[in-house]
Amino acid sequence: MSDLLAHIDGPDDLKRLYVVQLPALADEIRAALLRYCAAKGGHIGSNLGMVEATIALHYVFDSPRDRIIFDVSHQSYVHKMLTGRRRAFTDETRFGSATGFTNPDESDHDSFVLGHTGTSVSLACGMAKARDLTGGTNNVVAVIGDGSLSSAVAFEGLNEAAELNGNLIIVFNDNEMSIAENHGGMYAGLAELRKTNGTSPHNLFRDMGLDYRYVADGNDTSALVEAFEDVKDCDHATVVHIHTVKGLGLDAAEEGRVESNHWHNPMPAPDAAPAKPNARKTYGGMAMDALAARFDAEPGLVVISPATPGSNGITRQWRAAAGRHYIDTGITEEHAVTFAAGIARAGGTPVLATSATFFQRAYDEIHQEFALNNVPGTLLVFSGGISGADNTHSGAGDVMMFGNVPGLTCLAPTSGEEMLRMLAWATGDARRPVAIRMPGEAVLAGERGGSYPRFVAATAESTDVQADDGVAAKADNGKAGEAAAAAVEMTGRSRGVGEVSVDDIAATSVDGDPWARYTITRSGSQVAILGLGNAYPLAEEAAAALDDAGVRATVIDPHQYSTIDAATLDSLRERHTVVVTVEDGQLEGGWGGKIASYYGDSPMRVLNFGARKEVTDRIPLDVLRKRYRLTAGDIADAVLSALRG
Amino acid sequence: MSDLLAHIDGPDDLKRLYVVQLPALADEIRAALLRYCAAKGGHIGSNLGMVEATIALHYVFDSPRDRIIFDVSHQSYVHKMLTGRRRAFTDETRFGSATGFTNPDESDHDSFVLGHTGTSVSLACGMAKARDLTGGTNNVVAVIGDGSLSSAVAFEGLNEAAELNGNLIIVFNDNEMSIAENHGGMYAGLAELRKTNGTSPHNLFRDMGLDYRYVADGNDTSALVEAFEDVKDCDHATVVHIHTVKGLGLDAAEEGRVESNHWHNPMPAPDAAPAKPNARKTYGGMAMDALAARFDAEPGLVVISPATPGSNGITRQWRAAAGRHYIDTGITEEHAVTFAAGIARAGGTPVLATSATFFQRAYDEIHQEFALNNVPGTLLVFSGGISGADNTHSGAGDVMMFGNVPGLTCLAPTSGEEMLRMLAWATGDARRPVAIRMPGEAVLAGERGGSYPRFVAATAESTDVQADDGVAAKADNGKAGEAAAAAVEMTGRSRGVGEVSVDDIAATSVDGDPWARYTITRSGSQVAILGLGNAYPLAEEAAAALDDAGVRATVIDPHQYSTIDAATLDSLRERHTVVVTVEDGQLEGGWGGKIASYYGDSPMRVLNFGARKEVTDRIPLDVLRKRYRLTAGDIADAVLSALRG
Repeated sequence: MSDLLAHIDGPDDLKRLYVVQLPALADEIRAALLRYCAAKGGHIGSNLGMVEATIALHYVFDSPRDRIIFDVSHQSYVHKMLTGRRRAFTDETRFGSATGFTNPDESDHDSFVLGHTGTSVSLACGMAKARDLTGGTNNVVAVIGDGSLSSAVAFEGLNEAAELNGNLIIVFNDNEMSIAENHGGMYAGLAELRKTNGTSPHNLFRDMGLDYRYVADGNDTSALVEAFEDVKDCDHATVVHIHTVKGLGLDAAEEGRVESNHWHNPMPAPDAAPAKPNARKTYGGMAMDALAARFDAEPGLVVISPATPGSNGITRQWRAAAGRHYIDTGITEEHAVTFAAGIARAGGTPVLATSATFFQRAYDEIHQEFALNNVPGTLLVFSGGISGADNTHSGAGDVMMFGNVPGLTCLAPTSGEEMLRMLAWATGDARRPVAIRMPGEAVLAGERGGSYPRFVAATAESTDVQADDGVAAKADNGKAGEAAAAAVEMTGRSRGVGEVSVDDIAATSVDGDPWARYTITRSGSQVAILGLGNAYPLAEEAAAALDDAGVRATVIDPHQYSTIDAATLDSLRERHTVVVTVEDGQLEGGWGGKIASYYGDSPMRVLNFGARKEVTDRIPLDVLRKRYRLTAGDIADAVLSALRG
Repeated sequence: MSDLLAHIDGPDDLKRLYVVQLPALADEIRAALLRYCAAKGGHIGSNLGMVEATIALHYVFDSPRDRIIFDVSHQSYVHKMLTGRRRAFTDETRFGSATGFTNPDESDHDSFVLGHTGTSVSLACGMAKARDLTGGTNNVVAVIGDGSLSSAVAFEGLNEAAELNGNLIIVFNDNEMSIAENHGGMYAGLAELRKTNGTSPHNLFRDMGLDYRYVADGNDTSALVEAFEDVKDCDHATVVHIHTVKGLGLDAAEEGRVESNHWHNPMPAPDAAPAKPNARKTYGGMAMDALAARFDAEPGLVVISPATPGSNGITRQWRAAAGRHYIDTGITEEHAVTFAAGIARAGGTPVLATSATFFQRAYDEIHQEFALNNVPGTLLVFSGGISGADNTHSGAGDVMMFGNVPGLTCLAPTSGEEMLRMLAWATGDARRPVAIRMPGEAVLAGERGGSYPRFVAATAESTDVQADDGVAAKADNGKAGEAAAAAVEMTGRSRGVGEVSVDDIAATSVDGDPWARYTITRSGSQVAILGLGNAYPLAEEAAAALDDAGVRATVIDPHQYSTIDAATLDSLRERHTVVVTVEDGQLEGGWGGKIASYYGDSPMRVLNFGARKEVTDRIPLDVLRKRYRLTAGDIADAVLSALRG
């Protein structure tokens, strides 16, 4: 193999090569990508497909004077290699020194931190507009894949592009697949364009007022260089449609063209049970199995995924078996939520699953079409909570996003079993819009040993009580009866101390919502610790830490974050002076502040624990927990200090 | 004139007419609409344009078995007239008994409450999907205008429609204009379709995989009936493109085709200074004038409107003068925010103006492309706060939406003069993402007499102090020096009591943000009342009410809602036992809860005043103020009660 890459510290070095040398460079880069992703994992497929196009872009255009904006930017590894950051991908000791997305803090060649789809064209429109207003002459290039093209905002950007009347080049990377398969009527038109070598009159881009050219082999550096040179410095908006092979060079992926090609783990485990238990796939899988068991009896029950099935436990086998009960809408969160509202209003039972960070796209539709219209639909929110992930995929804002929507019931289960009961209710008797925050790793860890499982029994009790109140108890497995029986004793203890009266128990179901009331899972005095969802195990740990200091804390599982259980909060006043809230997410706008506000006009001290208002970028979770004082020791110390004060 | 409408109490009555009678019915309805809108105001233009199409829809389809979904639903007056609600538009004593949008609580013929653009196709997809899953055979019809078509979510819906493989009819009402003009490259393609009588091969709809037919005269009932009969019960997704005349029958509008045609006020005052001062137009106009004065010197300064210029004080004259410094992106909030981020990153200075309720569409882009990327851009948020408006245009959620975004500076001016200084800072030295909540009616009322103006001087002071701290003071008019001089004395009084030290004043600018510190505008003890933005005048009133009870309250203008001014809050502990927050918006997730949380671990009592978590529908403002205890008397009573407790 040649030794070209080692001498490229920036685009100028690349430009010194002859065009005929570029394929050899591409081979080197491809080999480096395969080594890198085998060791580190990453978005392997899209980067392999874009090797030649990225080389050609930097060969022809003059970055950073010319601006190249990669949509989502997960395919920017090659761009990083060519712009001074190759060692982050070639030198094992420096693996991870570049992020997986573009980042202006890393390089002048990067314009934005991006991680959500479809915004590159609008960003490029803006950069072109500013250039034209200020008399600049540089090129602005957006690189967008066919998966991203179905995103709402991408269409808005394309519609604007033609209006700007200035240089704007949109490289449309068509590898014939999104994260999973492509979905949508426009893909037939794109196939026709590919089939006719770009000559079909049915051309979505031209219909949007854009100029257009086609490159049949988007992995041919010469053809790409020629095409880019043709459009360089053009005075209008032009689409260069390049047909590439996602995962080119990755044998298995190239054969199978499966979605595992999208993200490569260091130890590949495509679509099988993950080696290490993973909360998203575990609880997603549990939910999907519970729903699938009902498909025959409930024709209108339907699961919707906006192109993220794999990470939500919706396996290919499951999808195949679900048939028409499953719909992948493509990367279209706004549509997906609205679509769900339509299904619900017409008598169906929609369940829409995706990550917290992606639900942000549908904020308005969640408020308007979903909650305001009070449709009986269920949103399954995955990956909510603080995490060590990159800054574009933060899940720390989901409680603030969902919990403040008028009319939306927001549930936070503290076990898989409770999640299933909540799902059964949401898709059954609820007849209202419901969001369920799928449990995270902290809950999963508790399920498999540790101190938490004994409280599963306690929470199971509430369903039985609700059954007396006209809400059907939905036993999900044979153990439910046993668990409920075990719960009786605990409940007797919890409620014998007077915090919750018999009348309160009878009223556990509020407006038909069996989750409106908090559950006192452990009875104590002086201090009460409320742990929401993923934070519940930590509330338990903090209580245990306080035991050591001679303080027996009350522990509460609130089950939900959409309403305040005033009766339970009022009952605490008698024997408690400090209330602690613990949540796995941003405090500002979140949940605990509402408890503080509730007690504001009283002597009760309220301590809110949660994340700061900040977006973190690959900060390890244990560092974040220390930063936010989300440890049992920190909480116990704060409580003891408050009790003394 | 005929007397047909008086006998139509539902679609069955309509179906008894002969097709040849329909034009006469259209004439009656048109006359009724003109009378109704002259008296009550409303979305006159779109309804006048849709008279014939709505008649034809109900003549051919069988609502409510067949579902007709009107996009935005502001054009549903005729639909309401034909489905049992005609008296709400024909009988003066019942004017207003039907809402201005579709509403399932009103009629089985309405499927959804809608008020934001572009969702009808996705909703129809959902209803079609549920029908197909459950073995139904009804038609599902979405009616969408050309203005709405540029909305992101509409494209996502169109892309899905072809995939569903079942009956779905999309009536595309093309009246060649949005709220203002149409913007975007796709409109040239639509013009070509009109010009070629629908035969052009450049057909956006066909490219999305949809069947298509064209009706050249969308105000010809016979042609429409024929077209709808052709597509009724079709087994796939079909677009019926109808070319209508917006405002047909409204002489002036038909001639001028101006945007005033979109919304008709009872006393028409198109685009001129409104008869009654209006906060949106007043403050919007002030902001626009201040920006326009800088255009010559700042080529990159640009104002963006996602199709709502008129209601934000961006007059036609202003737009004409602004030239390339103004861009209407069409109804595209996601794109508009992302576009602004691109402009900012390329060195321009974008100012994006629209209503709080519409910014919801761009929630994700505000988080990601705008705030996370820390671009120097300004969002002007209009109509934030509780109002008597309909439930789809609530502004009560803007503080919770913007105030919790990490990295976004959120300002809430309490006077026009302060708004201008904030705007000057945001578009000047700030170099960061900023949202400014444009003042509402309560602030405007105070500017024109009443007790508030004297505090304008006090707040002006902070700028002068900041000037010493390296932040340039931007005097917006000749009165600034005078105001600042007057402020010195007040400041002396406010700060002489020890709440804020001299060191604090020197530190008024935090991280270059001159609005990070609260201003104590009135010094007192026992209780401190913080009034955010529009709620500031009420804080003053409550303080005055407490004066009568012998309690001299401290009053504070926080200026912003993105950070807590811990130093000022700490300083209050010495002489105060009760802190009151007052905000014009939803409490949950909003601002006051953060103050309660801050004081949680202390004896300070905190009383939060604001709106409940609910969406209200045309409830008069005075009723809401009573419901939320947002009156000076309620606040004073609560304070006195807390002081006693």
